[in-house]
Amino acid sequence: MPLPQPELPEPAHPEIDSMLSRKFGKEVANYFSGSPLNRVSFLRPDHAFLSLALKHPSASFVLFNKLEPLLASPSELFLAKFSDVQPILGDDPFATSEEELIAQYNSTSYIPQLVFLGLDEKKEGFQYKEHYKGQPYFALDVTPKLSVTEAAEKLIKDVEGRGLTFSKGRVHMSLAAQEAAIYAEARHLLDWNSRNPFCGQCGHPTMSVNAGFKRTCPPKDSAPAFASSDRPACATRTGISNLSFPRTDPTVIMAVVSADGKRILLGRNKRWPPHWMSTLAGFLEPAESVEEAVRREVWEESGIHLGRVVIHSTQPWPYPANLMIGAIGQAIPGGETVHLGHDAELEDAKWFEAEEVREALRVGTSGLGEDAGPEYKEGGLRLPPKTAIAHQLISAVVNGGFLSGAPMI
Amino acid sequence: MPLPQPELPEPAHPEIDSMLSRKFGKEVANYFSGSPLNRVSFLRPDHAFLSLALKHPSASFVLFNKLEPLLASPSELFLAKFSDVQPILGDDPFATSEEELIAQYNSTSYIPQLVFLGLDEKKEGFQYKEHYKGQPYFALDVTPKLSVTEAAEKLIKDVEGRGLTFSKGRVHMSLAAQEAAIYAEARHLLDWNSRNPFCGQCGHPTMSVNAGFKRTCPPKDSAPAFASSDRPACATRTGISNLSFPRTDPTVIMAVVSADGKRILLGRNKRWPPHWMSTLAGFLEPAESVEEAVRREVWEESGIHLGRVVIHSTQPWPYPANLMIGAIGQAIPGGETVHLGHDAELEDAKWFEAEEVREALRVGTSGLGEDAGPEYKEGGLRLPPKTAIAHQLISAVVNGGFLSGAPMI
Repeated sequence: MPLPQPELPEPAHPEIDSMLSRKFGKEVANYFSGSPLNRVSFLRPDHAFLSLALKHPSASFVLFNKLEPLLASPSELFLAKFSDVQPILGDDPFATSEEELIAQYNSTSYIPQLVFLGLDEKKEGFQYKEHYKGQPYFALDVTPKLSVTEAAEKLIKDVEGRGLTFSKGRVHMSLAAQEAAIYAEARHLLDWNSRNPFCGQCGHPTMSVNAGFKRTCPPKDSAPAFASSDRPACATRTGISNLSFPRTDPTVIMAVVSADGKRILLGRNKRWPPHWMSTLAGFLEPAESVEEAVRREVWEESGIHLGRVVIHSTQPWPYPANLMIGAIGQAIPGGETVHLGHDAELEDAKWFEAEEVREALRVGTSGLGEDAGPEYKEGGLRLPPKTAIAHQLISAVVNGGFLSGAPMI
Repeated sequence: MPLPQPELPEPAHPEIDSMLSRKFGKEVANYFSGSPLNRVSFLRPDHAFLSLALKHPSASFVLFNKLEPLLASPSELFLAKFSDVQPILGDDPFATSEEELIAQYNSTSYIPQLVFLGLDEKKEGFQYKEHYKGQPYFALDVTPKLSVTEAAEKLIKDVEGRGLTFSKGRVHMSLAAQEAAIYAEARHLLDWNSRNPFCGQCGHPTMSVNAGFKRTCPPKDSAPAFASSDRPACATRTGISNLSFPRTDPTVIMAVVSADGKRILLGRNKRWPPHWMSTLAGFLEPAESVEEAVRREVWEESGIHLGRVVIHSTQPWPYPANLMIGAIGQAIPGGETVHLGHDAELEDAKWFEAEEVREALRVGTSGLGEDAGPEYKEGGLRLPPKTAIAHQLISAVVNGGFLSGAPMI
């Protein structure tokens, strides 16, 4: 049986009849976007704020064990309280300023990764200064490790005793839209921190600052082996280096329309189930515009030459750190011959008539590991679920809804 | 006097009257995009291909000294020949396979960074297999350093003796459009390699592979101090890690239109010349869609609440590694009050009538360090040059050209 497909996030302010929405149609909000949290990013270095937020009774902690989130149900994250995590976090990790913590840095101390995710302003919570209020959300890595092994094992045993589970599997598409967006932010930040314990510039250990949104290369290390000398100079300490900030990898994903506007190109990977096809996709390269990356990837994977490219919508994809930029491109006349031999990533790529694709959107969509719906007939085209931006792009072309609202083909 | 502003790149296939271009208007191609090179990315691990390309008489080398490019004129890159760079590169850095080079890795050997940029298919050059031909382009770091100090100093003295210069200054906007795109690719890759000599995951030195487009963490190091033992396990060696591939940081930049559609918001940084204003901009954060990042940044920097956001076009920005994603957003009714106190990045942000902005686009655009044009009257609004995506966004709103072609306000 197909799993129920969660609803997509609401577009921001769908009720507003603005000039832009009249002209370009309703904004498409994709799964993993639509977060209810205000990140108040400029407050992240403010330990007075973070300390108050952390200890406020409304503070909520999303827990991860080896990047697996603790769920209250398939559609909901479990939210722990400060008292639950105090044995792991200590009384107040924000009691001293960031400068002091950097000055005291000791590479042999293990500090479990904590991330401030934002304030849910629609919920009752705490107030900070005039403008900032709501329920504070944090993410915490409770993987049993080094000095927190015992406290983390106790917490895990306790929550598992209450029937809760850390959700296995890599991709979580069963969460409700707003929960999925909170999970995506938490997972992306925890993963980035865990991949970068060392400085790419100088090779020394780095430390997490700015409530999980920055890593710094401290000038001194008070671990006994290093305490007598300063560390070598590092370029990330002078000026601003992008290596200090979280990495997000832009990828392009595109629906391709034929030159005569009557067909759409779909491709398939050999690992996919039979008859399952989707849009093409790939990583944007250094110094490419999105439009150029779309044309390059389509040519490399399918041999097709594109002209005009239009950007449709975007989707955060926290596996581990992607931004999917969805586009629609049209083949140039004479550039429609499929050739799979350049990059050889796809097992097949073919042109489909709009009617066949419309029918597949109606009866043949599902996640990769799931069965198609009850109306699906064996041998028919299968397509990704609506939580995938690929589905939205295909739908925008054959069913309309993007910009004018009328189908393109 | 204002410097001449170079022409923008041609949109791909402007002559084609496709359904997408009829519906959405002409594609906006921004400066640093529009590369004439086919990157044939799938050939980068193929040392037989790279070796032939490198030694072909048409092979062209863009040279950099500490990330500064060697220019033939303010609008043109100088292209060196293989014989010029052979004393630095050796007879053939691609003579052995990538696997062998990784197996022989020695962290004490200095190998000057070489990047294969692509084939210019419009120029006479060499042919590889059935589909790949053109003039091969490479970028090479000729900074005098370690084992190549002498050879690099000799080359630099030689080219400077011919009246050529490595161009100082951080941002190069005088290059002709296609030269700028080639430079951007080269600079982005050389910078990324130079920032990542160590592995962020395990702290050990990494080596450049895939013709400059990947860094790998070798399992052994044959340097005398390490030759007797394998290096510790590293997660980047098992499975695919994004840390092995070049980093590109997505940023959002946006023209903001008032709720009544009659005004446009512009902001200024205190470091800019008097009366100079531009669009707002900022980095996209982990697990944000572009549309959400636009709304967050506009609120954080100006206090304004946006509803509908439309993506306009994109621009590579190789300082050091950005992808600028240009958008247009509209304020919601009641959400237009400017408040600079949240993030406090801007010195000012104000609403402008369309007519004043149209006049400034006509008489008051220039690069940041340049004078405005001869028709500019002191005290009038100044705006960025057309090589900046900010200019294109402002122009799309007040002069039209985006999608329908009609001005929005």
